[in-house]
Amino acid sequence: MTAMRVNGKSASRIDLLDRGFQYGDGVFTTLLVQDGVPLFLERHFERLTRDCQRLAIPPFEWALLRQDVMAVLGDQRQGVIKIQITRGAGGRGYRTPGVVSPARVVVLHPPSRFPDQYSSAGIEARYCHVRLGINASLAGIKHMNRLEQVLARSEWQDNGVAEGLMLDHEGLLVEGTMSNVFLVKGRQLQTPRLDRCGVAGVMRSIIISAASTLGLSFSECRLTPAAVDAADEVFLTNSIIRLWPIRCLEGKSYPVGPVTCELRDWLKQTVTDEISRWSRG
Amino acid sequence: MTAMRVNGKSASRIDLLDRGFQYGDGVFTTLLVQDGVPLFLERHFERLTRDCQRLAIPPFEWALLRQDVMAVLGDQRQGVIKIQITRGAGGRGYRTPGVVSPARVVVLHPPSRFPDQYSSAGIEARYCHVRLGINASLAGIKHMNRLEQVLARSEWQDNGVAEGLMLDHEGLLVEGTMSNVFLVKGRQLQTPRLDRCGVAGVMRSIIISAASTLGLSFSECRLTPAAVDAADEVFLTNSIIRLWPIRCLEGKSYPVGPVTCELRDWLKQTVTDEISRWSRG
Repeated sequence: MTAMRVNGKSASRIDLLDRGFQYGDGVFTTLLVQDGVPLFLERHFERLTRDCQRLAIPPFEWALLRQDVMAVLGDQRQGVIKIQITRGAGGRGYRTPGVVSPARVVVLHPPSRFPDQYSSAGIEARYCHVRLGINASLAGIKHMNRLEQVLARSEWQDNGVAEGLMLDHEGLLVEGTMSNVFLVKGRQLQTPRLDRCGVAGVMRSIIISAASTLGLSFSECRLTPAAVDAADEVFLTNSIIRLWPIRCLEGKSYPVGPVTCELRDWLKQTVTDEISRWSRG
Repeated sequence: MTAMRVNGKSASRIDLLDRGFQYGDGVFTTLLVQDGVPLFLERHFERLTRDCQRLAIPPFEWALLRQDVMAVLGDQRQGVIKIQITRGAGGRGYRTPGVVSPARVVVLHPPSRFPDQYSSAGIEARYCHVRLGINASLAGIKHMNRLEQVLARSEWQDNGVAEGLMLDHEGLLVEGTMSNVFLVKGRQLQTPRLDRCGVAGVMRSIIISAASTLGLSFSECRLTPAAVDAADEVFLTNSIIRLWPIRCLEGKSYPVGPVTCELRDWLKQTVTDEISRWSRG
């Protein structure tokens, strides 16, 4: 059921000279399809647009990308859509060509299969040895240079461990290999500031926007592993898994606490609303 | 005259699901073709092999890759060959699939056109604002995550400036955007240690091997911009440009000094030897 499009046409291959393949010179986003709805599509488009801007990749047309998304989706009800925008083909060497014609790649994958209890009862996580390099120019962008994550994810094969937390070069907490991380202390919600490395996920921004609605105090800050130790609750987010509580991290146990549950319920309702909003057109 | 091969077959496109396109999950090398000879081919194969090993990409067969190189080369006498080895297609998500089938991509490009005086009289260079993130896991590897270089190279459009020097996150000198950098002080040759970031180029290793032959003292070390300021001579290397003296860096002038000239002459002779060695089979 994998459907693929490149620049508005059905295709399963990309130009070898595309800078996405040459240098990872592009950005991407991954979104969940539920009940036939590509969830939070506008937010994903906004994020792609912002990330393109950061890398000086010319903006794509939302209407065309939307057509691509609907075309790969067809009549599928569930799945995962990955969108990549690259700087396009051109130029041997790092210098960007004068005229750039970005490539738009959209692929529908089958739904991911994670056990239901990951959301309900929480997951076991670990710390990764591979650290994230600090680079303000790339921080926050979901760009296609993802070797740090590939290496970090290759550190464990144990299927009992669902995610690995990553620290930066200086030992501060940044994110999971494929997720953002939040700490809860009382009614206080915290997540690492992503101005030096890390990916600012769409689900992260949705959770942040929920904080004020739910009367939680929220801050982006520098967090150490000691802060994780001292947290009442810890959870992970991304657009596919939505929200996973951490129940165990390197031997330490955490409850699936009240704030985590509140956010998870709020998110479930928000998705339901999004689906009905979409159905009403 | 661009000829391209993927896994031993003529092809101009790569699978969208190839991890090279998805995550920059691969390595590459770029080599010069002169008088029909792909220069220092074994050294490039060695480097690719070492880099694959670092990323746990299964080793490729040298004989097959050599066939690809000769096939794209055909009867061309001059050009640039870029070889990419990726982890291949498979797995949505960073986790590497259990069975991996790496992809072998070989492309022949037309010769690069740089003015002759870059080699003879030297170039003007600048410092880039974009810094290199520090990550020991990736340091030294010529991997396909090259956004830092793309961003650094986009900082200037002035054709009078041929290369930009890059510092790491902590302000230490690492390399040029597409080259390695050497400092000369008397008969002492120095180049940045690449254990925290940077690409350990094939031409860099050739220059290092020349040092003892020529009776130069050599060290890899931590170098600051102040050390560049204090150097007698500064030059850049890579497999395509070979060796470019820096004659001007941010307003400061350097001579094309005796050690630089000695190394440049040695290199010219070494290339001549390599070409006759190849011709004799």
